[in-house]
Amino acid sequence: MSDRDQRYDKLFEPIQIGPVTMKNRFYVVPHADSLGMGKMDEMIAYRKARAEGGWGTVCTGETMIHETSDHAPFVCTRLSSDDFIEPMSRLTSAIHEHGSLAGVELAHVGASCPSWSYRQHPISPSAQFPRLYNNPVGARKMDKKDIAEFRGWYTKAAKRAQKAGFDIIYAYCSHDLSLLQDFLMQRTNKRTDEYGGVFENRVRLIKEVLSDLKDAVGDTCAIAFRFAVEDRQQPSSLNIREDGRRVVEALADIPDLWDVNVSDWAWDSGSSRFFEEGEQETFVSFVKQVTSKPVVGVGRFTSPDAMVSQINRGILDIIGSARPSIADPFLPNKINEGEIDRIRECIGCNACAAEVMNNTAIRCTQNPSVGEEHRKNWHPERVPPAHDESKNILVIGGGPSGLEAALTLGKRGYQVSIADAGEEWGGRLVKERKMPRLSAWGRVVDYRVGQLQLMPNVQMYLASPLTADDVEGFEADHVIVATGATWRRDGTGRSHLDPVPGWDGSQVYSPEEILNGDLPEGDVIVYDDDYYYMATVIVDKLVSAGCKVTYVTSAAIPAPWTINTLEFDHIVRTMRESGVEILVGNTISSIEETSVHVTEQLTGKESRLSSNAVVLVTGQLASDSLYYQLQQKQEDKLVNSLERIGDCVSPALIAQSTHDGRLAGISYGKIDTPDEDAGAG
Amino acid sequence: MSDRDQRYDKLFEPIQIGPVTMKNRFYVVPHADSLGMGKMDEMIAYRKARAEGGWGTVCTGETMIHETSDHAPFVCTRLSSDDFIEPMSRLTSAIHEHGSLAGVELAHVGASCPSWSYRQHPISPSAQFPRLYNNPVGARKMDKKDIAEFRGWYTKAAKRAQKAGFDIIYAYCSHDLSLLQDFLMQRTNKRTDEYGGVFENRVRLIKEVLSDLKDAVGDTCAIAFRFAVEDRQQPSSLNIREDGRRVVEALADIPDLWDVNVSDWAWDSGSSRFFEEGEQETFVSFVKQVTSKPVVGVGRFTSPDAMVSQINRGILDIIGSARPSIADPFLPNKINEGEIDRIRECIGCNACAAEVMNNTAIRCTQNPSVGEEHRKNWHPERVPPAHDESKNILVIGGGPSGLEAALTLGKRGYQVSIADAGEEWGGRLVKERKMPRLSAWGRVVDYRVGQLQLMPNVQMYLASPLTADDVEGFEADHVIVATGATWRRDGTGRSHLDPVPGWDGSQVYSPEEILNGDLPEGDVIVYDDDYYYMATVIVDKLVSAGCKVTYVTSAAIPAPWTINTLEFDHIVRTMRESGVEILVGNTISSIEETSVHVTEQLTGKESRLSSNAVVLVTGQLASDSLYYQLQQKQEDKLVNSLERIGDCVSPALIAQSTHDGRLAGISYGKIDTPDEDAGAG
Repeated sequence: MSDRDQRYDKLFEPIQIGPVTMKNRFYVVPHADSLGMGKMDEMIAYRKARAEGGWGTVCTGETMIHETSDHAPFVCTRLSSDDFIEPMSRLTSAIHEHGSLAGVELAHVGASCPSWSYRQHPISPSAQFPRLYNNPVGARKMDKKDIAEFRGWYTKAAKRAQKAGFDIIYAYCSHDLSLLQDFLMQRTNKRTDEYGGVFENRVRLIKEVLSDLKDAVGDTCAIAFRFAVEDRQQPSSLNIREDGRRVVEALADIPDLWDVNVSDWAWDSGSSRFFEEGEQETFVSFVKQVTSKPVVGVGRFTSPDAMVSQINRGILDIIGSARPSIADPFLPNKINEGEIDRIRECIGCNACAAEVMNNTAIRCTQNPSVGEEHRKNWHPERVPPAHDESKNILVIGGGPSGLEAALTLGKRGYQVSIADAGEEWGGRLVKERKMPRLSAWGRVVDYRVGQLQLMPNVQMYLASPLTADDVEGFEADHVIVATGATWRRDGTGRSHLDPVPGWDGSQVYSPEEILNGDLPEGDVIVYDDDYYYMATVIVDKLVSAGCKVTYVTSAAIPAPWTINTLEFDHIVRTMRESGVEILVGNTISSIEETSVHVTEQLTGKESRLSSNAVVLVTGQLASDSLYYQLQQKQEDKLVNSLERIGDCVSPALIAQSTHDGRLAGISYGKIDTPDEDAGAG
Repeated sequence: MSDRDQRYDKLFEPIQIGPVTMKNRFYVVPHADSLGMGKMDEMIAYRKARAEGGWGTVCTGETMIHETSDHAPFVCTRLSSDDFIEPMSRLTSAIHEHGSLAGVELAHVGASCPSWSYRQHPISPSAQFPRLYNNPVGARKMDKKDIAEFRGWYTKAAKRAQKAGFDIIYAYCSHDLSLLQDFLMQRTNKRTDEYGGVFENRVRLIKEVLSDLKDAVGDTCAIAFRFAVEDRQQPSSLNIREDGRRVVEALADIPDLWDVNVSDWAWDSGSSRFFEEGEQETFVSFVKQVTSKPVVGVGRFTSPDAMVSQINRGILDIIGSARPSIADPFLPNKINEGEIDRIRECIGCNACAAEVMNNTAIRCTQNPSVGEEHRKNWHPERVPPAHDESKNILVIGGGPSGLEAALTLGKRGYQVSIADAGEEWGGRLVKERKMPRLSAWGRVVDYRVGQLQLMPNVQMYLASPLTADDVEGFEADHVIVATGATWRRDGTGRSHLDPVPGWDGSQVYSPEEILNGDLPEGDVIVYDDDYYYMATVIVDKLVSAGCKVTYVTSAAIPAPWTINTLEFDHIVRTMRESGVEILVGNTISSIEETSVHVTEQLTGKESRLSSNAVVLVTGQLASDSLYYQLQQKQEDKLVNSLERIGDCVSPALIAQSTHDGRLAGISYGKIDTPDEDAGAG
């Protein structure tokens, strides 16, 4: 029946989890979507797409058991009162429709968050500040009555979950975001009663909660325990490493399912810049030796061989996934149908996490339909057919937006030509994927080029710079300009709205030179006014080339936006390890031949840094000149129909480019309805 | 009829604004509530309460005209499509019910924000980074077509607003948050066409939009222009100051209403710590000399005398208010009814703004009903009657939570006794209100004590420390413990979960000593691990006392939570002006007799600072021992009914304490329904 490679049969064997049976080994682990209950339709459509794509289990993100547990301003789902049963049952129905199990991660975030929405005092094993956010609020120490109530909240929430139709119900103890973890860790548990001190006391509450859950709902629901076996962030990690194993030993067969990972999130969902596929194996491999219950774990797995290997070698029973299921909800079905080449592999850029951290709706660089399943009715795989297959569309620029537009239009059945001036497909990614630690980003290009090359209705032209006259001569029905952006040379960016004096010196580099392999030598200052990845990637590059690098940024911390991609800690650690000098909170006031003048933003203090060379990473500029030439031609009726997408509109995330490309590809040929928002008044 | 003082008659004269008439001179200016359209019922109830309280006009916050305008992750209202007409008409109906006008601040935030929700490219007069947030996205330069479309968006949104029933429709050009302001300011407008360069060009778009609005909806709606006459934040402010007057001259009688203020928000809504009532007069007083149209302005006005003076002296025609209307929605009615003493005056703490900045629902220190009008059905003035007026309740502790609980219970009609160990009412505020620049915070105490003293059913006892036995002897039907918190001495806080070595030296001070007036001399290090106001207030105090102060904080910037209260810039400026040394991103590793060892968090670099003394501002500890003694007595059936509120639960905002007090006061005597969330499982 199926065209599946037999080697992967193992991945499609059913497995018993407590009282329920999962149809295969593909499991969407709990993860945040920043949609929550305020955007329930979006959230359901997002999760449902994963069930449709073949995942045997699809879980929610953290689902709060009580009003004292709240991530505000971040959104979450809740089962803290009966009111939430109905919306959650709509979610489970949508998941069940595709034969998948629905899991719910019941959580109490304890002292990690200030519990702000409901204006309650947060709770904690010991009185302390919540770890996240700076809110002026303390967590109160729970007394015995509080602990009893807490157990009651978990049980009640579990009963609500059972009513809502969930098959797998979690207790949550991971990511440094859980009251149960607060109790477990000596760092946060300073109690002297039977819930603090020795290991047996610190694990007591977890044991009680798991037993309560089994008693309450274990008849029909599997009880899962999500547990970080290792805290890789804290200096006290050794202590946790030891305890991690002891916890698994102490609770071995109590839960029906072990969902294991590492803490905190920046290590669990480590970006591809700093973590390899399967990186957690070292930490979680012991678990199956201790318990007889099924074990699910994660590793940004996109290769079916790696997945099968995990199972065959007895590391995991079930392949957990958040990011690969975001990038390709149809990954299981594609393996099942022998269409491995069609898997849209996660690039590990963490744009998904960034949206959650940024407190906006989940998105994905590889998969522009993420978060748009309901709002725009975008499907991860299917596109609407062409309104007229004879229409020919010219896409100018073979970067992420151009490739995605061509792919979408090609799938729809149009006659598509895509042209790029360069020798390789990829636009910005041609060079970026060759920069240190960014090679996985190349998957954005490889996936699309691979698909496009199979389409008879798509013509691809490299080394084909087009002038406006060339485009006119092409006589396309529609022209999509996707000509990208270049890095600014003059230092204008976030802090500098005017050029930095001295920017035109021969010792001053823009990222363009570095990307082209034209590197400075000696003492180099890398100036970061961009705040995302480029400056610190260049630091990496220059360090490898033997430069002595000073990293200067106008921000109060290095590369602040990388907090959102969970990369900040790793960036700082890497720079420290490679001896990079770090100077934060300083803007460059002027550049001279052998020195740079900087001004401390906070105090106005000026100082002078010696340097052989300066790299100004401050911002990008849209390459929009062709677009404006064509706009003129359109006004002169020499070009039919025209639009621009991606960085040539304005420079942004690659995820913005693929989204732009999809939008352009889907929108073309739509029956014209009066656009509510367009047109002059 | 009314008991109004004749001196205030002027405030109750109707005024014509274009085609509409406002019944009096009390005007709730547009302001954010962080409820938005996701919490429409809450938002409507919040705004409606202001109409009920007598404000002649009640406005929305920023209401976006198009999907390219978006504050995400911050919430806002929208009229960017017809879908939003229905919910907005529910708002205007609620406002009209009380005879007030409804105003809507139509806005496009332009290049200030990354326009993240709708995954659109932000727009701007010139290509640049959005000013807020670090999102990796550029704003694109608008071409002529874009400018024409933008005008169309404004007009369409205005027509939707008219349909939704709004009486006053704004164009928005303030707070450094507006595309119109981006066009006006040379700093952000680098265009060389007829929309850039000379003043006449930079003001062109504003003029066009205002004319468009008048043409589109001016028949039935008043067109208001909200304009920052001065940009107090930018170094380029002189340029703006000059342009500010020119704008008013250029547009003088085009809008029907001038709503004038200063930019950015941290100056417009300056906290009482740094700004006096009526502080904007210097900047806006020229406006009425230039235009014949009515002028509304703000000044954190809570005194009717100050309001009348503004009108009599020809500064303003209409008294605008955001914060005073938050703290007391019934301020106009109270003036009208001669009940000035019952006005709950805004303390200017900016807890309201903090919630918006913190991206959670609006709240207020003085007025705990804010944001709870719908969710908890709390009214700003009315409380439910006592279930049994003979019940006597003992409140222990006369700080913000105790006073609010006593006030609520007293209003309800119970027999209330409130006791405090000290010589003055106010709890933490007894001393805090005497600290530099915090005197307005005392209004929290004065308002409540003033009301309580008028109540025959409330007994008030100062200098009355109570033991658990005393409480038992009192035989109250219900005991509310509100015994507050004290500052930690041992340095534990956000960064230190264990005591700081050397904390017990005689040269080490806690905030308690400083609050008691026991000040060190010479070179003093103030260590801020608390991140809100206390450390920098102590810096102020010590500087005044002649100390040479070094401010050290574990945070990457000073007092980071004060970004939320709009105080950060002012705190840094004040410290700089008074010669305070600032060292950020360092934790104290140990304290010796004449020095302090610090560790830079980012790099691990250790250094040593000399000091005569150290003040550790790291966190507070709940004073909960009496509560636990009473809990024991309750278990032994010696105390009837017991709860605790405020900082003795866990230390938090004063707004949390007044909210706790209100909640306790409202909840008492409620018919027992099975509490969904309470009780062990």
